[in-house]
Amino acid sequence: MLEANLDDQTGEALGYVMQLLLDAGALDVYFTPIQMKKNRPATKLSVLAPSTARERFTQLILRHTSTIGVRYQTWQRTIMQRHFETVTTKYGAVQVKVATYGDIVKRTPEYADCARLAQQKNKPLMMIYQAVLQQLD
Amino acid sequence: MLEANLDDQTGEALGYVMQLLLDAGALDVYFTPIQMKKNRPATKLSVLAPSTARERFTQLILRHTSTIGVRYQTWQRTIMQRHFETVTTKYGAVQVKVATYGDIVKRTPEYADCARLAQQKNKPLMMIYQAVLQQLD
Amino acid sequence: MLEANLDDQTGEALGYVMQLLLDAGALDVYFTPIQMKKNRPATKLSVLAPSTARERFTQLILRHTSTIGVRYQTWQRTIMQRHFETVTTKYGAVQVKVATYGDIVKRTPEYADCARLAQQKNKPLMMIYQAVLQQLD
Amino acid sequence: MLEANLDDQTGEALGYVMQLLLDAGALDVYFTPIQMKKNRPATKLSVLAPSTARERFTQLILRHTSTIGVRYQTWQRTIMQRHFETVTTKYGAVQVKVATYGDIVKRTPEYADCARLAQQKNKPLMMIYQAVLQQLD
Amino acid sequence: MLEANLDDQTGEALGYVMQLLLDAGALDVYFTPIQMKKNRPATKLSVLAPSTARERFTQLILRHTSTIGVRYQTWQRTIMQRHFETVTTKYGAVQVKVATYGDIVKRTPEYADCARLAQQKNKPLMMIYQAVLQQLD
Amino acid sequence: MLEANLDDQTGEALGYVMQLLLDAGALDVYFTPIQMKKNRPATKLSVLAPSTARERFTQLILRHTSTIGVRYQTWQRTIMQRHFETVTTKYGAVQVKVATYGDIVKRTPEYADCARLAQQKNKPLMMIYQAVLQQLD
Repeated sequence: MLEANLDDQTGEALGYVMQLLLDAGALDVYFTPIQMKKNRPATKLSVLAPSTARERFTQLILRHTSTIGVRYQTWQRTIMQRHFETVTTKYGAVQVKVATYGDIVKRTPEYADCARLAQQKNKPLMMIYQAVLQQLD
Repeated sequence: MLEANLDDQTGEALGYVMQLLLDAGALDVYFTPIQMKKNRPATKLSVLAPSTARERFTQLILRHTSTIGVRYQTWQRTIMQRHFETVTTKYGAVQVKVATYGDIVKRTPEYADCARLAQQKNKPLMMIYQAVLQQLD
Repeated sequence: MLEANLDDQTGEALGYVMQLLLDAGALDVYFTPIQMKKNRPATKLSVLAPSTARERFTQLILRHTSTIGVRYQTWQRTIMQRHFETVTTKYGAVQVKVATYGDIVKRTPEYADCARLAQQKNKPLMMIYQAVLQQLD
Repeated sequence: MLEANLDDQTGEALGYVMQLLLDAGALDVYFTPIQMKKNRPATKLSVLAPSTARERFTQLILRHTSTIGVRYQTWQRTIMQRHFETVTTKYGAVQVKVATYGDIVKRTPEYADCARLAQQKNKPLMMIYQAVLQQLD
Repeated sequence: MLEANLDDQTGEALGYVMQLLLDAGALDVYFTPIQMKKNRPATKLSVLAPSTARERFTQLILRHTSTIGVRYQTWQRTIMQRHFETVTTKYGAVQVKVATYGDIVKRTPEYADCARLAQQKNKPLMMIYQAVLQQLD
Repeated sequence: MLEANLDDQTGEALGYVMQLLLDAGALDVYFTPIQMKKNRPATKLSVLAPSTARERFTQLILRHTSTIGVRYQTWQRTIMQRHFETVTTKYGAVQVKVATYGDIVKRTPEYADCARLAQQKNKPLMMIYQAVLQQLD
């Protein structure tokens, strides 16, 4: 995990940087609103990336944001195993992510598929989700 | 109440603007973290000022921030009546704000007085507050 | 809608006040994190209540919080019509809220029923939700 | 301004709704993190739209989000007059928005133009901004 | 400390999970508002638990939330020593937590006792606190 | 990095503590809005300080805030090398921070200098920044 506190960069530029870091292969990028000295509303940038890519992401952050420093630290992760199944609804086919860990099993309709169908069929996103869930047992 | 959403200004500049608006006589100025389009973390600036000063504060906001628009609206306020009493503690004298509304009475030690004593006596701020509260009955 | 900015009250006391206002019949109570002058992290308290109850809620806020002023303003609301249906799942019966507005119809499992079943059956809340959604057509 | 508090919708679905409302012509859409009863982290959806489009946006919000109610209120706005100028930098041409109000004049490089050049030339966004600002006098 | 970023779970379900994790013996559970990709407002779940209970809390989080991964890391803690004293006020008895570390001593009225008295006596919570503080020397 | 979650301290007192910790030599101090159990809006205090000063900052936090515990952890940092250059604008001289790391070079006008000139010349802060940027090549 790499982090930087940014109080001298605009939100406009930060939105640009989020996309740039995702395109560069970050596992996750997120912003947290923080409050810094001298009454400054600011944003904490957090980037999850493999340790082996740390120097590369450090350089991207230093190059594309206003910060002059990046702090980092290693976190461990427990990740469920995943595979995909296809579910067919009256609106069309949707991939469902099946995640397992020991006896825990979770099925989640893929957002991108549901959003695509919602737009094609001009239906609320929730209606598509619900249709997928009804096909799961 | 005047408001503007700011996604193209730095936190550094916003801290500067807060002080500038307070110095110009705003009743209150506060920031709310918001999230705007295109993944932009942003800040909503809110300024409480008398209606009669609205044009003056609109100009200050347009001149000193990056926004090109200010929205505004009138709110009513119910304010408690206030007077001050002096309370003497072993650390020194502190003003206490006494606020009343119908049968409601609240006494609040003045922050600035407590902070000053805390620094002079090198004591935690809470210890000064507590000493003042013990003098109230 | 009544609002107050609070920078001189603890979170502990604010949690207490939220419950107190809900018990007193507020339609909704919510907190927004804000940033006030002098580097103070603060909380905006918002209370939705009928206009006819405004004075009563003003007094509750003045009595139970540290603020010395409450601001207020009237908002209009468009509310969907609602009725309840009962859906029976393999885990038990759950009320479903049916909300309609023109041709818009939404069905939402009641949180409290799902939470109760989740605890009784020792199942994840999401599994109960999903079971209810599968019964809707 | 239309608003709804959402505690029974996922962030994934809310990101979808933001884009949908912008595509439908909203002047602005933003999210504010709030805290609702029963320990629920929630999101306030705010939509700025002309009064004449209020019913249309109310229906969009009711149809595409989980809320069963929308509240609304009219705000006035003071907007600076705007026109565009083209500035040529060593990286390429960029539109600059010129906003005026009385004697206040502000020039802001267009984000989209700068972002496009940043990607084409593989330069930091800030470097493009800076190059544009240097051409202004 | 265990953490997970949640953009595909409702606030309603998160409130449920907070209580479930506290009931399961977590030392602390808190939410932080964050902003994830694709314009998604999201919530970071943080759970403080002893290292020895890590696997158990990982399973609870994976089972009861929508996340497919949990990250974790060890933090050290410095904790003040604590004991309780009873203080008697005109409203009734209240436990006071006395925390010490080297020469630092802090006395804090127990929230639960004050809240109970506030309700029994129909007095503002702050008035009870103040009555307790006045008994401390 | 030292952290503490605070739900029993006012924003007023937290603003005081931020300044106190900065005056004591903290590298950075910031607040994050969080949500704790029992519907409490709260604030996470984060303090960046050298490991060698950890015990000193732990004591300051325990003494001056309401927390009874501080958690801490070591982060690594990558910091750009910095030196200062003076730039002369039509409004006066401003220090510019030049930060370098490998082939990355960033120039940032010093906030304090710009703010001072903005007040002396009664000009918007952004106009001063822009004037400085135009002198850079």
